[in-house]
Amino acid sequence: MRKERLFTPGPVQIPERVLKVLGEPIIHHRTPEFKEIFLYTRELFKRLVDSVSENFVYFASSGTGAMEAAVINFFKPGDKVVVINAGKFGERWGQIASTYGLNVVELKYEWGKSVDIEELKEVLDKNPDIKGVLFQISETSTGVYHDYKAIGELCKERDCLAVADAITALGVYNIKPEEEGIDILIGGSQKALMLPPGLSVLWFSEKAAKRLNKDIPKYYFDVAKEVKKQKEGSTAYTPAVSLIIGLRESLEMLLEEGMENVEKRHRLMSEATRAAVEALELKVFAENPAISVTAVYTERAEEIRKGLLKLGVRTAGGQDHLKGKLFRISHMGYLDTLDHLSAIGALEMVLSKLENRDLLGVGTKAFQQKVLEEEKLL
Amino acid sequence: MRKERLFTPGPVQIPERVLKVLGEPIIHHRTPEFKEIFLYTRELFKRLVDSVSENFVYFASSGTGAMEAAVINFFKPGDKVVVINAGKFGERWGQIASTYGLNVVELKYEWGKSVDIEELKEVLDKNPDIKGVLFQISETSTGVYHDYKAIGELCKERDCLAVADAITALGVYNIKPEEEGIDILIGGSQKALMLPPGLSVLWFSEKAAKRLNKDIPKYYFDVAKEVKKQKEGSTAYTPAVSLIIGLRESLEMLLEEGMENVEKRHRLMSEATRAAVEALELKVFAENPAISVTAVYTERAEEIRKGLLKLGVRTAGGQDHLKGKLFRISHMGYLDTLDHLSAIGALEMVLSKLENRDLLGVGTKAFQQKVLEEEKLL
Repeated sequence: MRKERLFTPGPVQIPERVLKVLGEPIIHHRTPEFKEIFLYTRELFKRLVDSVSENFVYFASSGTGAMEAAVINFFKPGDKVVVINAGKFGERWGQIASTYGLNVVELKYEWGKSVDIEELKEVLDKNPDIKGVLFQISETSTGVYHDYKAIGELCKERDCLAVADAITALGVYNIKPEEEGIDILIGGSQKALMLPPGLSVLWFSEKAAKRLNKDIPKYYFDVAKEVKKQKEGSTAYTPAVSLIIGLRESLEMLLEEGMENVEKRHRLMSEATRAAVEALELKVFAENPAISVTAVYTERAEEIRKGLLKLGVRTAGGQDHLKGKLFRISHMGYLDTLDHLSAIGALEMVLSKLENRDLLGVGTKAFQQKVLEEEKLL
Repeated sequence: MRKERLFTPGPVQIPERVLKVLGEPIIHHRTPEFKEIFLYTRELFKRLVDSVSENFVYFASSGTGAMEAAVINFFKPGDKVVVINAGKFGERWGQIASTYGLNVVELKYEWGKSVDIEELKEVLDKNPDIKGVLFQISETSTGVYHDYKAIGELCKERDCLAVADAITALGVYNIKPEEEGIDILIGGSQKALMLPPGLSVLWFSEKAAKRLNKDIPKYYFDVAKEVKKQKEGSTAYTPAVSLIIGLRESLEMLLEEGMENVEKRHRLMSEATRAAVEALELKVFAENPAISVTAVYTERAEEIRKGLLKLGVRTAGGQDHLKGKLFRISHMGYLDTLDHLSAIGALEMVLSKLENRDLLGVGTKAFQQKVLEEEKLL
C-alpha cells in the first residue's frame, strides 16, 4: 500500500469537503444557480480580506495570469516600478513588467534574503515617479517572507501601488489589504485556498482603481471588464465552474476557523518545523522565513527528497541555481500539526539512514516542544 | 481546522479509491451490470483466501450476523461445541451458541490471555463428540491473538469444525483456510476490508458443507440458499450494492499489495507501535498480541484518549470491566507507518503533559527503530 502526502507548495492536500463538491456533476455557468454560488463566494472573499469593496476578480488562470493582469491593467509602458527580486517569483515580476515595457528598478537580493525596507524607502524617496512596488509576500522559491505591512506603509503615503503576489500568502496570513495599504493582492487556488490549480484572484484598492487604463492592449485579462461583470454575478468568459464551487467550501472552512486562527496554525506548523529542522542540524534557508513554506538547505537535498517520497512524503526541490541544494516543505493546504509530525518523523528516519547516525526522535521532540508551548492540549 | 483520524478497530479509514466508487450513483442489483461486478468480487475473494471453492456468501449484515449464520447453519441444538472465551467477542460466540441450544463447553481465559492450545487439545481428546471450536483469530476487545493455525491443525484430524471469527483478521493475516484447516471463516467490511460497515462474509470448507442442515429455523441467514444464488451472481435478498462495489476496489487493493505484504505491513505497524508503547512505559495488554489492534493498559486510558482526540487521533476505549483501563489503537484500514508515527507522536505529547514529564520523541524513536530494522528505505 502506498499513500502519498503532498507537502509541496502547491498543489496541496485538498479537504474532503472540497473534494466532495468537486466530484459533483458540473452545472452550467449561465444559470441562476451558478450566479448565486458565484456571488456568494464573492461575499466570502470579502470577509477573507476584511473589505466590503467589489474591486476584485477571479480568473480561470494560474496565479501568473493574475500577476500579468496586475501589470497590464494598472500600469502603462514607461511607468517606473520597483521589483523586489529575491527569488524565482520576484524575478518573474521583473520579466512580466519588462515584457510590457515598464521601466523596472530591480532591488535584487541574494536568494534566502528578504527585502531591506530601509533600502526600499531610500529608493522610493529618491524616485518620486515610482508608480508601484511589485513583490511577493511569501517568496515560494526560497521560503522568504517580505514584510508586506512595511511595504504597504511606504506606499500608502506615496502615489505608488503596493502590488503583492500573495499566491502563497492568501489563506496563510490574515491579510487586510485595505487597512494595510496593499493596492493589488493576487492569489492562486492551488495553495492555501486548498483547491486544484486553475483559478486566480486579483483584488485591488480604490487607489489602484483610479489607475485602471487601456494603454496596454488586453483581452482575456481585462480587469475593468471583468469586475463590471463579476460584481453582477457573471463573467466575461467561461469561469472555472468547479473551482468556484470548491472555493465556496474552502473559503467557508477558512472563515469558520477564522483568519487569525488560520495564521496562528501556519505559524505554529512552520515554527515547529524549523525547530525540528535545526534540531536535525539542517539549515533553514530563509533569513526571515515565511510561514507558508520552509526551505531547507543541504547538499543532500535530492537524496533526502527521494527517501521522504519512499516513505510517502512528497516535498519540492530547489529551483534554478539551488536545484539539488534545497528541499521545501509546505505548510499550506489541508494540513495540521499531526501531519507535520509524521513528515518530521520520516525526515529523521531518512537522515539517520543517509548519514548513518542516530537522529531518531530528535526533530520530533523539538517539534513537539513548540506545539506544547503554543497549544492547550488537555 | 480539525482533522480526525480513525485509529479505531472499525470503522476504519477508507481509501480514496473506495470512497470514489461509494460516491457513484447506485445501480440496481437485478442487472447484468451488477451481476458481473458481484461475480468478479467473488473471484477476487477466492484469491484473498487462496481457494477455488464457491463455498462462501456475503450478507448485508454486520459481522455478528455472519457469526449467527455460522451457528444456525452448521450446528444443531444439542451439538457440543467449545467456545474460546478470552474477551467480549469470545463471550459473544457463547451467547449465540447458547441462544440456539448448543451445548457450550467454554474455555474461559482472563482478558489479555490467549487460548492454551494444550488445554484445548485435552478437551478435544476427552470429548470426541465436540462438533466445533468457536474462536476469534484476533480478539478485538483485548488485542489478543489466538493461534488459528494450531486450532485448525487440531480440528483437521477430528470430526470438529474450526469456526474462526476473522472479523478483525481477514485482510490482516494471510489466512488460507483450506490449507490451514479453518472450516468457517467470518469477515466484516468495516475492518481490514477498508469499507463502511454493513457487509459480512462467511466462507466454509467442504467438511463444513456436509454439516449444512435445517434443524435450526432460519430465513435471512440461510447459507445453503444464499450460496446457491450467489455462485450464480445473484442473492436471495437485496445485497448491499454500494459495499459490494466498494469491495471490488478494496479487494483489488489488497491483492495488488499481495496478502503476504499486507500481513507484513500490519506486523510492522503493530510491532513498532508496541515498541513505542513500551518505550513510553505503558503496558501492552495482550500477552500474545494480534497485529490488527494494540490494546494498551493504563489507569489514565480515558484522559489519554481525550488528549489524543483533541490532537485528531480517535482511538477506542476498553469494554465491560476494562472500561477506562484500556485504549486501543487499530492498525487496520487505510493506514501506513507514517500514519502511525503521527499517532505515536501525539501519544507522547499527551503523556508528557498528563504526567508532567518529558517523554517527547521517546516512543517515536522506538517506533522508527523497528521500521528501520524491517524496511529498506533508501
